[in-house]
Amino acid sequence: MTDRIKYLLGEDEIPRTWYNLAADLPNPEPLLHPGTGAPIVVDDLTPFIPEVLARQELSREREIEIPEPVRQIYAQWRPSPMFRARRLERALDTPAHIYYKYEGGSPAGSHKPNTAIAQAYYNKEAGINRLATETGAGQWGSSLSLAGAMFDIDVQVFMVKVSYHQKPYRRLLMETYGARCVASPSVETEAGRAILAEDPDCSGSLGIATSEAMEIALNDPATNYAGGSVLNHVLLHQSVIGQEAIAQMTLADDYPDIVIGCAGGGSNLGGLAFPFIGAKLRGGKDVRVIAAEPAACPTLTRGKLAYDFGDTAGISPLLKMHTLGRTFIPPSFHAGGLRYHGMAPLVSDALMNNLIEAEAVKQTACFAAGIQFARAEGIVPAPESTHAIEVAIREALRCREEGTAKTILFGLSGHGHFDLSAYEAHLTGALRDEDCDEVEMARALADLPGFPGA
Amino acid sequence: MTDRIKYLLGEDEIPRTWYNLAADLPNPEPLLHPGTGAPIVVDDLTPFIPEVLARQELSREREIEIPEPVRQIYAQWRPSPMFRARRLERALDTPAHIYYKYEGGSPAGSHKPNTAIAQAYYNKEAGINRLATETGAGQWGSSLSLAGAMFDIDVQVFMVKVSYHQKPYRRLLMETYGARCVASPSVETEAGRAILAEDPDCSGSLGIATSEAMEIALNDPATNYAGGSVLNHVLLHQSVIGQEAIAQMTLADDYPDIVIGCAGGGSNLGGLAFPFIGAKLRGGKDVRVIAAEPAACPTLTRGKLAYDFGDTAGISPLLKMHTLGRTFIPPSFHAGGLRYHGMAPLVSDALMNNLIEAEAVKQTACFAAGIQFARAEGIVPAPESTHAIEVAIREALRCREEGTAKTILFGLSGHGHFDLSAYEAHLTGALRDEDCDEVEMARALADLPGFPGA
Repeated sequence: MTDRIKYLLGEDEIPRTWYNLAADLPNPEPLLHPGTGAPIVVDDLTPFIPEVLARQELSREREIEIPEPVRQIYAQWRPSPMFRARRLERALDTPAHIYYKYEGGSPAGSHKPNTAIAQAYYNKEAGINRLATETGAGQWGSSLSLAGAMFDIDVQVFMVKVSYHQKPYRRLLMETYGARCVASPSVETEAGRAILAEDPDCSGSLGIATSEAMEIALNDPATNYAGGSVLNHVLLHQSVIGQEAIAQMTLADDYPDIVIGCAGGGSNLGGLAFPFIGAKLRGGKDVRVIAAEPAACPTLTRGKLAYDFGDTAGISPLLKMHTLGRTFIPPSFHAGGLRYHGMAPLVSDALMNNLIEAEAVKQTACFAAGIQFARAEGIVPAPESTHAIEVAIREALRCREEGTAKTILFGLSGHGHFDLSAYEAHLTGALRDEDCDEVEMARALADLPGFPGA
Repeated sequence: MTDRIKYLLGEDEIPRTWYNLAADLPNPEPLLHPGTGAPIVVDDLTPFIPEVLARQELSREREIEIPEPVRQIYAQWRPSPMFRARRLERALDTPAHIYYKYEGGSPAGSHKPNTAIAQAYYNKEAGINRLATETGAGQWGSSLSLAGAMFDIDVQVFMVKVSYHQKPYRRLLMETYGARCVASPSVETEAGRAILAEDPDCSGSLGIATSEAMEIALNDPATNYAGGSVLNHVLLHQSVIGQEAIAQMTLADDYPDIVIGCAGGGSNLGGLAFPFIGAKLRGGKDVRVIAAEPAACPTLTRGKLAYDFGDTAGISPLLKMHTLGRTFIPPSFHAGGLRYHGMAPLVSDALMNNLIEAEAVKQTACFAAGIQFARAEGIVPAPESTHAIEVAIREALRCREEGTAKTILFGLSGHGHFDLSAYEAHLTGALRDEDCDEVEMARALADLPGFPGA
């Protein structure tokens, strides 16, 4: 067929190992124990996650084998397709080649099952039958609920309150899979009750919901915590995306000049881009990587690089990352998956080492890009993914201006079927750009934790 | 990989022709002109659809070439995957082999784009820039909206009022693609106004919405009508499903004893099953085909085989089909795509010739089956598709009882992301089985049209 638009790989080409960028970075920063300031060891993590995941979290090995039962479930939707966006290219009248790696074909509709399945598998192997987690827009919560259904694990999800109300269908999806989903802050935890005592109308944040989930896991030995982003082992599991994309680019006889991913906690961006960065660090082709983040929660472009907690209450280890401060509560914009105060340490490290760039984009521009994409390519993108699309369109239009035919690959991390009320707000003109609150940001940044040796 | 669960075909294996069952049936019934009672000719149809589609509607050719631009758009999600439901088999503890052909990976989330893309293409080629249509649950309306976006055609969708309110996200999906969607009956047509004058609270039906769309097309030479089911050319286009499934069964080194599809207007069932029936009629393997229909709208199991209109107002040609009467308004159950008074003439013909069977199933059993499927296989099915799942599970359990390892293939026509409020109703115990109203059915059946020569 002429003008090929789809690049598929066979089931046997599902990667056999995950790729760990920590092996190729000059000197990745350790996690620190908040009490002692000493680097975290495996035993510090096992109250929350099984030992094998704790070892992955701290690992410097380049390749970690994917268990066969996990690969077998991956096989339902992996290798995920990579598409050439020919109709979008024509609509933009650009000489650029635009590709997108689409993760919305997973049963939960996003890239999140790549790690949810792995985490559920390892927990089940360790005899754990209950998992607690947080979710923003609900992509992670529904993915862990899916994984829980497959491995017969009870799942409790703390969903950021603003998203809980914006995206009722995401909650219903979790319940259909058999999970229990509560709005966060909730009265079910100390952390939630403390926040509600101060502000009963608190719209919630990923940091608060994370505290609630970690508290549940900490207080109940039979319950573990499962994280949907930020952590090293999560980004590790997502590396299947980029590894497949490299093989698909070979099929397309092309290679990206620019790789773009939206970044909230960093797992989508890391999953797509790290294998390309790793290849470059080991002598492969150069590639520009752009993290597209929301202007209303500009962690990479305006946050401080510091040790901070991953959660609001301060239960997690200390992570060296770009942060807006763990108590920062971003405005209620629609890309709930990007409303996080921090960033994956590996992404922050890559930014520090000039291996990636970051751009902050506004939600009305992102939704306009999302609609242009939907009408050209047919797939309605998740609000998070529209951030990558907006940056990809900008780069493609720059190619038109400059008359250069660059190759652009972006991550379409999920579909927007559960986010159509946000599209309605955009189409009816009700959507506004919410700025990052400067006072709130300054307050939260002033509140960074001290720790021994800081 | 052991225990293979997915059967994929390459892009080159997208069928090059559509398969037309009319070529293999002994004596398919013609469409009749309602004024004269004479068999319909091409010119009778061209006020509604382009000449090439009118010729396909009346064709007795076995194979009709798929235009290359249509195949190229198909390539975005076709060949669609066929899965072996190994986790469901284990959950049911059945010796049966259960396969499902999944059409929910299309950008609109169902099988409907298979014909929407073809119809939009032929209309565009004929210089038509406006299409009107009806939709029940919204799967067809959103698919035609998608096709309209791709071919720059304005689309107006009359959506059955009960579904319009049950499934707001489906309307939003159409609007995101740029279409206009109104609740039917509406004040925009004579047909709608007449119904509303009699019953201002009318919940609508596919027959009424079809009348509204056909009236718009009839009164405006620049607007054509596009049908989402029932018509011969629609079932023709859907035959890609079954043709691919046959190839995938070969890959699996297996062949179905039983093929199951849900049936509303018949396009999903026909698309999946007709290629298997055709193969059998031409000397191939025997296969049992089961149409799964809703007990609350039991067209095949309790309707009358007669000439009736496809729409409530009587604008369409007369179709020889199983019908509950064109003025029948079914109860407001959640599988809106199955709330149609009639059945595709080719499906009715196949039933008459004992090439298929029909079973009526109740919605609470279907949703329970849908949830069992979702928790085992990960994919949340559309309410329509749960009818096929319910029958497939019954057959698989019968295999367990009888100790026979039959091979069962069912059509998973779409995902249920837009139907989660129905799942919520089920999970909270609010869902009831609505019976087919005997009085309403008797009234509507007494009202079948007379026509010259009847």
